[in-house]
Parts: sequence; C-alpha cells; structure tokens
Amino acid sequence: MRLVALAGGTGAAKLLRGLDALVEPGALTIIGNTGDDAPVWGLHVSPDLDTVSYTLGGFIDESRGWGLRDDTFRTLGEMVRFGEPTWFNLGDRDLATHLHRTRLLREGRTLTEITTRIARDLGVRHAVLPMSDQPVSTRILGPDGWLTFQEYFVREKTQVEVRQVDYAGAAEARPAPGVLPAIAAADAVIVCPSNPVTSIGPILAVPGILQALEATPARVLAVSPIVGGAAVSGPAGRLMAARGLEVSALGVAAAYAPWLDMLMIDTMDAGLAARLEAGGVCPVVAETIVRGRDEEVALARRVLEALA
Amino acid sequence: MRLVALAGGTGAAKLLRGLDALVEPGALTIIGNTGDDAPVWGLHVSPDLDTVSYTLGGFIDESRGWGLRDDTFRTLGEMVRFGEPTWFNLGDRDLATHLHRTRLLREGRTLTEITTRIARDLGVRHAVLPMSDQPVSTRILGPDGWLTFQEYFVREKTQVEVRQVDYAGAAEARPAPGVLPAIAAADAVIVCPSNPVTSIGPILAVPGILQALEATPARVLAVSPIVGGAAVSGPAGRLMAARGLEVSALGVAAAYAPWLDMLMIDTMDAGLAARLEAGGVCPVVAETIVRGRDEEVALARRVLEALA
Repeated sequence: MRLVALAGGTGAAKLLRGLDALVEPGALTIIGNTGDDAPVWGLHVSPDLDTVSYTLGGFIDESRGWGLRDDTFRTLGEMVRFGEPTWFNLGDRDLATHLHRTRLLREGRTLTEITTRIARDLGVRHAVLPMSDQPVSTRILGPDGWLTFQEYFVREKTQVEVRQVDYAGAAEARPAPGVLPAIAAADAVIVCPSNPVTSIGPILAVPGILQALEATPARVLAVSPIVGGAAVSGPAGRLMAARGLEVSALGVAAAYAPWLDMLMIDTMDAGLAARLEAGGVCPVVAETIVRGRDEEVALARRVLEALA
Repeated sequence: MRLVALAGGTGAAKLLRGLDALVEPGALTIIGNTGDDAPVWGLHVSPDLDTVSYTLGGFIDESRGWGLRDDTFRTLGEMVRFGEPTWFNLGDRDLATHLHRTRLLREGRTLTEITTRIARDLGVRHAVLPMSDQPVSTRILGPDGWLTFQEYFVREKTQVEVRQVDYAGAAEARPAPGVLPAIAAADAVIVCPSNPVTSIGPILAVPGILQALEATPARVLAVSPIVGGAAVSGPAGRLMAARGLEVSALGVAAAYAPWLDMLMIDTMDAGLAARLEAGGVCPVVAETIVRGRDEEVALARRVLEALA
C-alpha cells in the first residue's frame, strides 16, 4: 500500500509514528509543511520537517514535542551577549541539523535532497519531502502588521489578534520533485491532524498540489485536529476562525472540500457525522486524542482500516 | 602612548593581556592574523581573532589556549551522524561567535566591522582589527599536496612534512580599514611572540602593511617566539626551516628585517645579542617564557620599558 501523508509538526508526527509501526518501510511518502521555516542566526530552520524526522528517527523530545531529547541550550545562552534574538529555542544538538541543512543549501543542494539525506541519516524508514523547494512563508496579520508564523507562534506565544493569514511566495512556488507523482500514484492520502490553516494550508497553497489531490484516484482521509469545538493543541481554532472556517470538524471538512473523501472525527463529535455526510464527506468516528505510543498505533490502525 | 600589535593566537594573547593590564583602555590597536580563518560547517571561523578577543575579554579556556572556558561539544557530537567533519573542535558556546560572525558577513558587513563588534561585546577595551577584509589563506605544501593551515595544524596535528608555505589570495588583499593609519600614527609597534611564518607572515603578506612598517616613525619591537633554538610552542621551528629561516632569534630577526628596530630575546639566548646587533637589530634580553598572569604583565612591562 502506497500512502501519502500531508503533515505539519507535532500532531502529525504522532500519527506518522503510529503508521510507521504498522506499514512496511518505504510505504509512506510524507509531504511536510515548510511555511513555518525560519531563518535563525543565519541558519535555515525547518521546524515541521525536523519534528517529523526527529519523531520517526526516535530522537524527539517527547515532553516538548519539538527538538531533540536531552538537549542543552548553551549556544543560545551566549547569543544574548551579541544581541542576537533568543526567542527561538535552538538546542545545541538540534543546531547540528540546521548547520548541516544550511551548509548544503548554500552549496546549491535543494531542500528536497537535504531533507531526504537528513531523514536517512536519522534512520527514518520512509520518504520525507518538503512541500516545495521554493520558499513559502506563512504570515499572520496582527494589529501591528505582518508577523512570520514563528514570530506569531513562538515569540508572541499566539497572543496576537489574527486578522488575516497568507502564504507569501506560494504563487511562485512549485511542488517539490516527487510530490505530485506520489499523490498521483498513492493508494491513499492521509491528511494528518495538523492545523488546517498554518500546517496543511501552506501545502495546499503550492500551485498544483490541490489539483493533484482532486485528480488522484486515491482515497483521501483527514484526521480532524478539532475535537469538541477546540483544537487538540495550539492556535488552530483562532486561525480557522480568522479564515472564516467554523471551529469544528465541519470547518475542517470545509477547508478540505472538495477533494476530501473521509474525515476521521473524535467520538466526542459523533453528533456531527450526519452533517458531514450531508456535505459529501464520509465520517469515520474514532478515539483521536492520543496519549501514548499504544494510542498512536491504535489511531493509525483505525486510519488504515477506514482506508482499506 | 598609541601602540600597534601584530598578533597571532595564543602566544600573542598572553602578551596582549599583559599589556592590557598596563596601558589605558583604547591605547592598543591589535592587527590580527586571518590567514588561518577556516570554513567549518558553513561558518566563518577566525581562530586567531577569537583567541585574542576571548583572552582579553576574560573568556578563554586557559588550559587549551583556545575556545571558551567551560564549553561543551554537543553540536559537534551530532555532526558525526550527518557525515560533517568533526576534526575542528567548535564548542557549543564558541559556536555563538561563529554563527554571529557568519550571519553578519552574509548580510554584507565587513570582517572589520564584525570583529570590532565582537570584541566590544566581549568587553575588550582595545581595538581588534583583522589584517584584511579580503580572504587570505595560509597553505602548507606537504608530500600529498596543499593543505589549509587548519588541516595541517588541527587535522594532521602538524605531522606532515612542510615543503612550502604560501598565503593564497594575499596579492589581491588590501589592509583592513584602520590598519595602515594605526601603523602610521603609532608610537610603537609590537610584533607579538607568534609564529613568524603562519601568524605574522600572513599579515606581512597583505600588500601595503610591510611598506607601512618600513615607513612608520614608530619604534618596532618583536618578541622572539623562538627560545634556545626551538619554538616556545607549536610548529614554528619546522615552518621557519621550510621558509629557509634559521630556527633561532636570528631567524626571527631575518624574517622581520629590514623594518625591525628591536628584538626581545630570552635570557637563554643572550649569547645571540652581539650577532643581532651586528645585523642592525637592537637586542633586548628578558625572561620571555610566561607561566602565569604575573609573568605576562612582567613581560609586557619589559616590552614597554624597551620601547620608552
């Protein structure tokens, strides 16, 4: 079974780790969000791609959901002296990834090549692809102007009124090599339980990806990151509202229409099933909130069963 | 008293720290060697400039003579996984300096501006200038071809036969802004006890600096790094021999003729005084091997007395 997964960061990574436990090595092609890639101290940081590869490689810091386990922050501690920004937490071990990526980018390698190498070096058994080799920057319009996603999310801790969200550069971006063929050849496409606006939204904004999702014969199933009218974690609710989407599984379905076949919703939202079905999306009810490795695998199994 | 010092790394830094204890803040303009600057993981590393600023700022690791005190090597430890070279030891705290420097260089700042900022941020009370803003690379010809200085010194631990030394790029380099005016306006110029071939040699190879040293009305005093026919530390002896210089204070004088007024030699080499004098260089005999902070200051005092 050839699976394609559209993925953001932490929420996606848990489902992907569950899938990794169930499918053959190489069965998954993960298309990761790069809309929240950020320049930090002159380095190219790809938070979502790294969260996926760190998680699948077994290196993720489980309690934080980002970065490497047992990391320290000694470089960051020195940056204060030089007046460099210190609000983006790059650990010492984590820095190796960003230095390596940045060096290769400066030497002319593409983000696709580099992401593939890093995933391999971390022992990931599946393909991890960026959505695009061209820069796409998710931006948030607040009362004082535009913020990059990381400024909004990390520096301002999401405490900024969201007036608008856009994906700067998306119109000029092209899908990374491998993205469209993977979608076309997939037996199933899984949209991970990631923020529809700032994790999946940037992927869909790359010209050609939406069309590929509409055209693929594969079944497309999304797992709703909204449970009981609120995001499982993060600012997805506020961001969806800012995009005019209802903060519910119905809003998630609306974001992914018309190419979505199935939406996995939490048992808590079972009451929405009929309305989803009326809207042309097949509801799949499951326990979607995962609290440990067993529940990750159980959720992944439920996804595979629904797609079978 | 306006002093200019030509400086390499560790040996120079000790004398400079002694001088710092005796002269007014701002009295010193230090012209540092950048011939052993190296690209490491895509970062621009300036080992000699950093050793000087770390030492004068009070941050140097005294036992190693390079890098920051209490540093760790966690980023380096991860680099193995990505196949990045790990023979050049960059500490986690140290990395902040190189990241900051590299970011500013990429933004178009000059090495002079950046070196000034870093020295200031580290609390250095004197001017630290690179010899040039253009790249000059000290290279060592061994039996298997050319090596950069760091490849020779760190990776090969100097265990390579030296057939030739050159300073690639020197012909196209220009003295950094401030270098020639400082030499012209100096009351005295001090050539620190650094390797004449690979620490001071690259500085002298930058067109214009030699001429400024010949033209300056300032007295020029060098402290010999060769004591009793051998280098106080490092491969200076072998490198001098490869350049056809006698491995002795006489060879040091020969390297700095004809612009050298005085050469401070160790008491152990007092017997060479007459031959130095015959060669037109005024010998100054002193205890030049320093074992602690008091001796650094004593050496610096002796230098200032000789120049007075």
